[in-house]
Amino acid sequence: MSTTEIAPELRTLLLLKDDATRRDYCAALPDATLADLLRELDVADIWDVLSLLSSRQRAEVFGHLDLDHQVEITESIGDDALADLLTHMSADERVDLFKELPEELQESVLPLLAKAEREDIRKLSSYSEGTAGSVMTSAYVTLPYDITVSQALEKLRRQWPAKETIYYAYVVDAKRRLMGFVSLRKLIFAKPEALIGNIMQPDVIFAHASDSQEEAARIIAKHDLIALPVVNGGDAMVGIITHDDALDVVTEEATEDILRMAATDLDEYENPSVVESVRRRTPWLVINLLTAMCSSFVVSRFQDTIASFVVLAALMPIIAGLGGNAGTQTLALTVRGIALGKIPLARGWQVILREAGVGLLIGSLVGLLTGAASYLWFHNPWLGVIMFLAMTANILIAGICGSAIPLTLKALRLDPALGSSVFITAATDVSGFLTFLGLATLLLARL
Amino acid sequence: MSTTEIAPELRTLLLLKDDATRRDYCAALPDATLADLLRELDVADIWDVLSLLSSRQRAEVFGHLDLDHQVEITESIGDDALADLLTHMSADERVDLFKELPEELQESVLPLLAKAEREDIRKLSSYSEGTAGSVMTSAYVTLPYDITVSQALEKLRRQWPAKETIYYAYVVDAKRRLMGFVSLRKLIFAKPEALIGNIMQPDVIFAHASDSQEEAARIIAKHDLIALPVVNGGDAMVGIITHDDALDVVTEEATEDILRMAATDLDEYENPSVVESVRRRTPWLVINLLTAMCSSFVVSRFQDTIASFVVLAALMPIIAGLGGNAGTQTLALTVRGIALGKIPLARGWQVILREAGVGLLIGSLVGLLTGAASYLWFHNPWLGVIMFLAMTANILIAGICGSAIPLTLKALRLDPALGSSVFITAATDVSGFLTFLGLATLLLARL
Repeated sequence: MSTTEIAPELRTLLLLKDDATRRDYCAALPDATLADLLRELDVADIWDVLSLLSSRQRAEVFGHLDLDHQVEITESIGDDALADLLTHMSADERVDLFKELPEELQESVLPLLAKAEREDIRKLSSYSEGTAGSVMTSAYVTLPYDITVSQALEKLRRQWPAKETIYYAYVVDAKRRLMGFVSLRKLIFAKPEALIGNIMQPDVIFAHASDSQEEAARIIAKHDLIALPVVNGGDAMVGIITHDDALDVVTEEATEDILRMAATDLDEYENPSVVESVRRRTPWLVINLLTAMCSSFVVSRFQDTIASFVVLAALMPIIAGLGGNAGTQTLALTVRGIALGKIPLARGWQVILREAGVGLLIGSLVGLLTGAASYLWFHNPWLGVIMFLAMTANILIAGICGSAIPLTLKALRLDPALGSSVFITAATDVSGFLTFLGLATLLLARL
Repeated sequence: MSTTEIAPELRTLLLLKDDATRRDYCAALPDATLADLLRELDVADIWDVLSLLSSRQRAEVFGHLDLDHQVEITESIGDDALADLLTHMSADERVDLFKELPEELQESVLPLLAKAEREDIRKLSSYSEGTAGSVMTSAYVTLPYDITVSQALEKLRRQWPAKETIYYAYVVDAKRRLMGFVSLRKLIFAKPEALIGNIMQPDVIFAHASDSQEEAARIIAKHDLIALPVVNGGDAMVGIITHDDALDVVTEEATEDILRMAATDLDEYENPSVVESVRRRTPWLVINLLTAMCSSFVVSRFQDTIASFVVLAALMPIIAGLGGNAGTQTLALTVRGIALGKIPLARGWQVILREAGVGLLIGSLVGLLTGAASYLWFHNPWLGVIMFLAMTANILIAGICGSAIPLTLKALRLDPALGSSVFITAATDVSGFLTFLGLATLLLARL
């Protein structure tokens, strides 16, 4: 929501001076909407509003704020308030915040938490960033297989509302190994005396805690799951990843793909200072400077040719521009195709061959146009022929590089999107100038 | 899943000749996994396997296939089988398929469907592509506000399993206007004699059928919803969008952003023929040819300058390359920032100003490096000065164009990502060459 859209609600909130009215006003807003309003306020004011709420709503609204914002707020509220906040936050959001707290704060607040929350933080924080383990939550319900439906419902009733996601309950054995699951729906409509082991669905789709978070999100998307159980190396169930976390992962991964292709990264959204942006983007442009110097070097080898026919310099931007953009088309399709699992590495060669074919066809079509245009512009048929040949080769090479670069990065176990727009323009510039100026040198007598 | 990964299951499936064994084998696989296996088979073989399954599982597995694949299969299976398939498919998948069927097939199968399904198709198909209405499903449960919890549970029990998503039931008045909702969880744990109107949550987050599907998906992501109710122009509830559809929308939109930025589109994944790829990409490259000719024209105006100092031609790729990539960085951040709702149009000027600042800083840093490198390479201090100034201006302009182009497209109600990499390279090439060669002409006597 933009500032202009939230302005009326925000004004209302700030006008209400009486605490009770403010509390009622806030309680009626959806948590995420209230968080949107708070985002526009100063840290001290945010806490003023949050303290009016119940522990539960406060933790919910707080959980919708950005992590940076959360950390800033926690630094001023005191250990007891922080402990209460942590206790009421959802398990996955709690551990994300905890990991960001300054060490002293971690040490002073930990003893104030109940044993269950303390152990939960310890367990969840042991998974490294980007893994399925790092996005899972421990707020799930397990059932033994040998109890009845009515016993199970009684167990759920006791755990609710502490457990957030009980649309699925997971059936585990004594070693917490996943044996199956039952949906809440099934439980309600089953005979009360039926055994869980008999009504459960025995084939469970699950992920390993060490799988990547993208892989886990892809499984959730593929099977339309509300939650995906996660097991550790010993096959014991350790958490679930919920549908809303999958949505966040997918959004974040797509954004990362786009930004990495363009040679920058997500941190720019998180830290909006100008200096930080400069620090993030400059290194890539320095790499780019080095690759551009290669193109420069190629051109400098043809100075004599250019000196005797300066029109060539004027046509260079057409070669570079179209090669770069044709390469970017292939690149984007390949990077995203890999991310979506549409292009398995094993079929890499097929993809490169196909893109070479597409490049050859497009190259000759666009080459014909370019050749004709150059002839009409400079009234030199041989210049037209050179442009036709150079453009065909250029777009052919763009197709090969546009697919081969991300596939190679992938084969090297690097992110296929990583700075690939820098590499693709380097590859198409060098090869484009080489063909174009090389051909011109060969045919210089005709120009 | 890649072919190599599914190979063993696929081999097993094909080896099982006995229908009963094949049926059992298929029934034990998750629907989406079975669909993955089938994707590797010929259309006729797919239907052979599908016909072994129960109507319900067949429709589920079929729903996981790509739409193109689905249409191809339906063309050969006969009207009765198609009607059975459509009857058992989920409402949103059914209408998506129906809209793609050839007209004669639509007309011959429609009379074979029950009235409820027929009307459902008619209603759902009335919403245009890309709207919330086009992705919603009619498989939701409504409850009147004046019945008791036990009556409500009885109603749910009767509608289940026909209604897919009953974790939320929506409370409506006689005109189907949304009054609130109850979660299945709440219903189970409430007193049987309580009135729905008293236990329902009265504040419902909803979307309008005419909202865009991205907007609806963003609401689902923001509020962590399992389903989002959709109302029509008369405020009557007409459907829900479920979490799994939101995930698909988000994935599709992100892919579209990436591909549109790179001047191509999603259809390339759907129709993998080489000719289709050529047809999709060539028009953009022709536009690119026109924009590149503008850069060419700029350079051609400086032919005399280049002729008297050919080193300038060798340095042109550095100007063009870095301007293009710096522009792409800003572009990607802005396009994605707009898509994620991080950059409201009202703050557009702030963003452009900020990017100008970042560009100026990065430009002078990279300019210093470039200037120094050029001096060391060609031993000409004035060339170093020209490169420093040109690079600074170049990256400053890249920052302004990289943010202004997508924001302008957005203000014109066009897709901010639309072919923006073509426009950004055009803008940075023209302005980069103009500054670089203009400065060189002014200082030609010193070179």
